[in-house]
Amino acid sequence: MQPIRVGLIGIGVVGSGTFRVLRRNQQEIQRRAGRGIDITMVADLDLDRARALVGEGVEVVRDARKLIADPNIDVVVELIGGTGIAKILVLEAIRAGKHVVTANKALLAVHGTEIFAAASHHGVMVAFEAAVAGGIPIIKALREGLTANRIEWVAGIINGTTNYILSAMRDKRVEFAVALEEARKLGYAEADPTFDVEGIDAAHKASLLASIAFGIPVQFDRAYVEGITRIGAVDVAYAEQLGYRIKLLGMTRRREADPERGIAHGVELRVHPCLIPARRLIANVEGAMNAVMVHGDAVGTTLYYGKGAGSEPTASAVIADLVDIARLHDADANHRVPHLAFRPDALSNLPMLPMGQVITGFYLRLRVADEAGVLAQVTGILAHAGISIDAMLQREADEVDQGAVQAGQPAQTDLVLLTHECLEASMNTALAQMQALPTVLQPIVRIRKEELA
Amino acid sequence: MQPIRVGLIGIGVVGSGTFRVLRRNQQEIQRRAGRGIDITMVADLDLDRARALVGEGVEVVRDARKLIADPNIDVVVELIGGTGIAKILVLEAIRAGKHVVTANKALLAVHGTEIFAAASHHGVMVAFEAAVAGGIPIIKALREGLTANRIEWVAGIINGTTNYILSAMRDKRVEFAVALEEARKLGYAEADPTFDVEGIDAAHKASLLASIAFGIPVQFDRAYVEGITRIGAVDVAYAEQLGYRIKLLGMTRRREADPERGIAHGVELRVHPCLIPARRLIANVEGAMNAVMVHGDAVGTTLYYGKGAGSEPTASAVIADLVDIARLHDADANHRVPHLAFRPDALSNLPMLPMGQVITGFYLRLRVADEAGVLAQVTGILAHAGISIDAMLQREADEVDQGAVQAGQPAQTDLVLLTHECLEASMNTALAQMQALPTVLQPIVRIRKEELA
Repeated sequence: MQPIRVGLIGIGVVGSGTFRVLRRNQQEIQRRAGRGIDITMVADLDLDRARALVGEGVEVVRDARKLIADPNIDVVVELIGGTGIAKILVLEAIRAGKHVVTANKALLAVHGTEIFAAASHHGVMVAFEAAVAGGIPIIKALREGLTANRIEWVAGIINGTTNYILSAMRDKRVEFAVALEEARKLGYAEADPTFDVEGIDAAHKASLLASIAFGIPVQFDRAYVEGITRIGAVDVAYAEQLGYRIKLLGMTRRREADPERGIAHGVELRVHPCLIPARRLIANVEGAMNAVMVHGDAVGTTLYYGKGAGSEPTASAVIADLVDIARLHDADANHRVPHLAFRPDALSNLPMLPMGQVITGFYLRLRVADEAGVLAQVTGILAHAGISIDAMLQREADEVDQGAVQAGQPAQTDLVLLTHECLEASMNTALAQMQALPTVLQPIVRIRKEELA
Repeated sequence: MQPIRVGLIGIGVVGSGTFRVLRRNQQEIQRRAGRGIDITMVADLDLDRARALVGEGVEVVRDARKLIADPNIDVVVELIGGTGIAKILVLEAIRAGKHVVTANKALLAVHGTEIFAAASHHGVMVAFEAAVAGGIPIIKALREGLTANRIEWVAGIINGTTNYILSAMRDKRVEFAVALEEARKLGYAEADPTFDVEGIDAAHKASLLASIAFGIPVQFDRAYVEGITRIGAVDVAYAEQLGYRIKLLGMTRRREADPERGIAHGVELRVHPCLIPARRLIANVEGAMNAVMVHGDAVGTTLYYGKGAGSEPTASAVIADLVDIARLHDADANHRVPHLAFRPDALSNLPMLPMGQVITGFYLRLRVADEAGVLAQVTGILAHAGISIDAMLQREADEVDQGAVQAGQPAQTDLVLLTHECLEASMNTALAQMQALPTVLQPIVRIRKEELA
């Protein structure tokens, strides 16, 4: 059989990894795919660098449209990133009848509906294993490996930068800014780390996971997103004492209607820092590694772990998609796996739940005046809101703020509470009341908590 | 589209789970597969029980051959187990042009070559996700998710019974027999636990993993198999002190030729108890859970975790195979994934290495006379064999065998050594020399050790 001819747009870190792995393992891959997979053309703005990377025998062009228009190209690999020119090129490739492989989570999270509709219309595949959790074949696991299941929830550490920072904060007992600087030095964080540390990148990925887990359109705009910039070393330490780790979690969960609690049937989709019991496997995923837990009604809890980024791990996912395409490019649509796991005509309009309707546990840290009655006030407010307390920790005043005491100010103490699951709206009400207490001296720190049992 | 019509042979624990999950999630599954998956006929020797399970509308027969011969059946699910009648029925189903789904690792490990050849000849699929690690989609991950990679090694906890027993020995500080009895009571071990505790079940699964990892025929008969029956609570405790856990590991590794060390190019395939650093994720897989690590040259190390047995977890894998078949049953062979990940004509004859050529680390426990010079003798033998020591632990005589001392016998002590990687043949030579020392008072306990880095 003829090799599949691939055009690669953007030969940066992942693109050069893809080129290198395809070359190195060409024999192994051909033994599996039954045919070769050849990158025959590369489009990149930096022609010289591109030429140096691919050597002789591969055409290098500056204009990606020339690659897309080439009738000898079967598959277009888009590795530019972003939602600008990448969107235009992906849609042009689809309209030109090319299959597309992309690692671009932002593009699919924001414009997925339009792109997958175009792909279905033109009878081509848009494959995106590399868009979520790098080399971990989580898209395939969810989309094909767990098809028997009604998926109940998915929870993942799907951003390596933030996991590196949170791991460093715990290991080295340093604050966020110090850990971020270290991550930058090691190449785990970009010069502008906003997309990572604010949770946006994780939310792109979580939106895709929600879609293929529940058979709903990709809806990044409905995701709740909170980053890790306000996590303090003190919270990491308190969590540790309570038997928990703080991780940035991408979480999506199906909820049944519960009229008594005022909850509608729908889907939670949220990215935020989260306490996880230290004994869970996922709590022990350290450094820049990724892991995704999937809970299905038949299979129970499964977990998938590996490198979530990097040149060759991401290339591993890109090439796996190319092998799938090599196998199925001339098959009819019924032989292919639907883009979002469910048939396009079988997607549901299960609504996204607003954060107030989310059910989760909480970690609360209150800086309070060290005087009689404070604990009764705080726990009274929680009890009144129907929120039960799971664990509590009170630090002696002298440990917490010796400086203040020595300065003759009133003694202060840290009151740390873990709650059982409750409605987020109830917690918001209780938080407002607690914050209004004159004995609560600083803004209350609130971090969500998931048991993932 | 017409539903796919499934005939189920053997409706025991997994069969009834398959029936139940297909019924419960039929809508969800149809939204994914684009068509229904209906169990229309069941064959089981216990007709009454089978009828009670499936209710009206499903034909129940005693003779599986009637099911196989029925032209209205598209796929046969074999859930009898064993290598006797199951083999005959699977081959008959293949010859009748039916696709086959099986959870039968013993059958495929022993007769895989014959069965897959017959399937290719008759143009049908034989799917076996359920045969390894229950609900974890590890076959799909290895066969499709990691196709870019040259797989270097696979290491798995792929037998829940033995993992339960080893976890209990550690948690409760009990001996093997006590833990086994507890596993029996909880239904994790069968009345005759031989297949599990002697490592045979794990070796069946490891043989399949080796085959799809490296593109070699299934060769259970070439696997080294050692069970956990001789592991003592004392070894579990010493391992713990040294920062390790003891797990029954199914391990397969590709080795490059190394003429200097006398090693040929080939594949290690072995199941045995194994020390693993406690900080590895896989070392923290507890109870009856399963996990498989796969190391590929591009992706690095990945891990897949979940329930390795049980009614619905295993059914999850059976049904995932049925969905794949529903999608591809009328596709041509080029559109399908090869049974053993590599095209039948591209399987290699990479040889299995004999155990003497295996490279691994070791844990050694020697009961020695507590007198001067013993340590020098032992370490001298290891040094002479070119084996370097990684860590050592010596228990004071009074802790070890106070009884013997009081009885006026010579004082004894336990000498525990961890070695770096070495050739197993070198270790065997060294072991024989150490065992011959008059100061070594009991048979030396030797457990292999893998860093899995």
